[in-house]
Amino acid sequence: MTKKADIGVTGLAVMGRNLARNLARRGHTVALHNRSETRTQELIDQFGDEGDFVPTYSAREFVDALERPRKLVVMVKAGGPTDAVIEEFAPLLDEGDVIVDAGNAHFADTRRREAALRERGLHFVGTGVSGGEEGALHGPSIMPGGSAESYASLGPLLESISAHVDGEPCCTHVGEDGAGHFVKMVHNGIEYSDMQLIAESFDLLRGALGYEPAQIADVFRTWNTGRLESYLIEITAEVLGHTDAATGKPFVDVVADEAEQKGTGRWTVQIGLDLGEPITGIAEATFARSLSGHADLRSATRGLAGPTRARLSGSEAERFADDVEQALYASKVVAYAQGFNQILAGAAEYGWDIDLGKVASIWRGGCIIRARFLDDIRAAYADEPGLPTLLTSGGFRKAVEDAQDSWRSVVQTAVRLGIPTPGFSTALAYYDALRADRLPAALVQGQRDFFGAHTYRRVDADGAFHTEWAADGRPEHPA
Amino acid sequence: MTKKADIGVTGLAVMGRNLARNLARRGHTVALHNRSETRTQELIDQFGDEGDFVPTYSAREFVDALERPRKLVVMVKAGGPTDAVIEEFAPLLDEGDVIVDAGNAHFADTRRREAALRERGLHFVGTGVSGGEEGALHGPSIMPGGSAESYASLGPLLESISAHVDGEPCCTHVGEDGAGHFVKMVHNGIEYSDMQLIAESFDLLRGALGYEPAQIADVFRTWNTGRLESYLIEITAEVLGHTDAATGKPFVDVVADEAEQKGTGRWTVQIGLDLGEPITGIAEATFARSLSGHADLRSATRGLAGPTRARLSGSEAERFADDVEQALYASKVVAYAQGFNQILAGAAEYGWDIDLGKVASIWRGGCIIRARFLDDIRAAYADEPGLPTLLTSGGFRKAVEDAQDSWRSVVQTAVRLGIPTPGFSTALAYYDALRADRLPAALVQGQRDFFGAHTYRRVDADGAFHTEWAADGRPEHPA
Repeated sequence: MTKKADIGVTGLAVMGRNLARNLARRGHTVALHNRSETRTQELIDQFGDEGDFVPTYSAREFVDALERPRKLVVMVKAGGPTDAVIEEFAPLLDEGDVIVDAGNAHFADTRRREAALRERGLHFVGTGVSGGEEGALHGPSIMPGGSAESYASLGPLLESISAHVDGEPCCTHVGEDGAGHFVKMVHNGIEYSDMQLIAESFDLLRGALGYEPAQIADVFRTWNTGRLESYLIEITAEVLGHTDAATGKPFVDVVADEAEQKGTGRWTVQIGLDLGEPITGIAEATFARSLSGHADLRSATRGLAGPTRARLSGSEAERFADDVEQALYASKVVAYAQGFNQILAGAAEYGWDIDLGKVASIWRGGCIIRARFLDDIRAAYADEPGLPTLLTSGGFRKAVEDAQDSWRSVVQTAVRLGIPTPGFSTALAYYDALRADRLPAALVQGQRDFFGAHTYRRVDADGAFHTEWAADGRPEHPA
Repeated sequence: MTKKADIGVTGLAVMGRNLARNLARRGHTVALHNRSETRTQELIDQFGDEGDFVPTYSAREFVDALERPRKLVVMVKAGGPTDAVIEEFAPLLDEGDVIVDAGNAHFADTRRREAALRERGLHFVGTGVSGGEEGALHGPSIMPGGSAESYASLGPLLESISAHVDGEPCCTHVGEDGAGHFVKMVHNGIEYSDMQLIAESFDLLRGALGYEPAQIADVFRTWNTGRLESYLIEITAEVLGHTDAATGKPFVDVVADEAEQKGTGRWTVQIGLDLGEPITGIAEATFARSLSGHADLRSATRGLAGPTRARLSGSEAERFADDVEQALYASKVVAYAQGFNQILAGAAEYGWDIDLGKVASIWRGGCIIRARFLDDIRAAYADEPGLPTLLTSGGFRKAVEDAQDSWRSVVQTAVRLGIPTPGFSTALAYYDALRADRLPAALVQGQRDFFGAHTYRRVDADGAFHTEWAADGRPEHPA
């Protein structure tokens, strides 16, 4: 072996294989390793001519094939298998080597692993990789955490294989330890929310206008030429325009309407709860998926009374598709505002220095939520790095304020026709709560003081107060 | 010492002290113990004449004072302190003795502790106790988990000090190991939801009708004579009717409108996510509290454009308070339906045999959510033990179906006037989703198959399918 490998990949299922091929195609020498030798051999047989691969067949051989500081990408199942692989390789490595976990780990696991390996003189980089199998091969969005020192050697490799937008790589050093996996988690949460809002838009156009899926596909195609231009809108048009070969029916009508929810959407909401961040859009999207999967419950409740889905007519019908576009846009701004604020809260909690504009920037390409919209978010944070929420950024603020009449109209129509729009509704409730001079939380605090002596704060004095409710008439007093 | 104590309480802060007094007042001999002796002595000095107390001043002395099988109630801070106290006493106990944790532990901790102590031949009972300090003294709702064997000796003691409704104790053996704390957690989650719905009702009556708090207190007093009769509605009227002594203003207007959220509401939602249970009402209530506490964010967004809160007039105004009552009732049925279904899901996941009617029964008195309503829930489960959701039970179904025109009208009014009603809205969206023949989750599944090859199921065939989206036109095939 004349040349040491620039990087190695262990775990050669489809994601690992595609990352390895992407690296090799970009001119890097890539050491390969897999628990069973077959996969390694298959990769060489099928794609060996795409670049410089160094197949290895033991942990020792793999490690020895790597240039120092070694960079090993681990691409195995999250949880126990990842820990097992780390424990297999760590003892063979030298100070300054870098282990990269490119799977969908929980950021808390990443923080734990990073701390443990740092103690042993090794770098551990948990990195989000978004874009699925195709993205891994052709250019994903990459969100590495870990130390700045590890990024100095690893970053250029990752940047070279990432998607690029306007000549900039969709890869940046997100922050220390678990920051990369945290940001990937929120990415997926936002993806849930975005998909739910699109699904509600489809349901509204169908329910209120009686459009067929193919017509709705056309509406999405039109939207995709405007401010909603995005990968998700584009593929929605593809899915809705697709005819099922077996039945000749619209594809979407032969698919079981029971969505699945995997870990990352759920994690985003659970962590939002821990951080006290009201990420209601992601929560509603996650719950909407759960609800759809409760087949027994749904079959028991399908007959509950409600409005029949009477069609709109006249001018309301004429402007409805445009109204839905406005409602979708405004709700989407809220969903992203909530997600970016969760990143801010995570950064504050865990001491990460995360550049939100940079995060928006690396989501512009490669990942599932890639969209023109993300360049607007990038610009918003570039204009005002301390932005408290996207909703107060000039362009978004104006767009949402302009959209709100349509947004309110669509939600009212949905409520009247009995079409569930939990995503649109919660986004609007969030907007109205933020606008409110006073929230009825004051009553909640009064109730809590009444039944549990939890005390309350006052608008006109500092400190905690308690009222002797059992002896009404006695003055309030500091608790 | 001539007589051994029937039960002991260690940890004599206000909750422990009141439980001990309640036990003594009911004729039980109660051994007392506290880390610092002062509290024990204070209890004897102030309340020693209320019954038979046995003060003890060491762990050994405490344990020796108890009749076998010993029953020790631990009433200390959840988490580490609880573990420490358990570890202090367990080695001094004998097979068959019962340690009772009456604090607000996470049910997962209770499961862990129960399993560990079972190994050592001891019973561990995690029990929910609701009703605050006053409830602990005068009769709380008590939700013990743990083994049936432990309930045989412990149950009669707990039942004797619990609240009673229609002659029945508000205490039952909920289920094995963590079942009691799980049910208490959901109780608190429902309490969050109930309080949020009441707060939204107040906000609507004020915003849409311009009522003063004292007028709204009268509305709640009226509601409290009907189907909404409950402790929370009663104290809401008290809080809204209260005038601040210092300023002469309505009390609710001098309270800071920033609510706090403690652990149990958050836990309920986090576990709902793990179980795949769409408990959207509790989630929105929890997030509404979080949002209210984001003072900096709210001050940055207070100027966002939206409707001014124009008052209703004419017939809409005349019937509005009644409409809000209907909306509140319907939303409350949904909140409780979601909560009871989460208990069902928890029972399935952890193998608990929980009688939902019994749970409703013991919540009728003593606890914060006590209400006439809970007797209706008890009856619903008595009529149909396998009820898939409260929404299909005869009485609730009819009430909600009858309420829905008002419910829809109120949500539309809120959206039009810009008054945030996340609780009402999500409840209605849940109802409409359950009613739906088809949900747009089918589109979500199509999107997921498109970008991630996640496969989908069909309405007309078993198995998982995948479409070759990149080669549109090729037939769908089993994955």
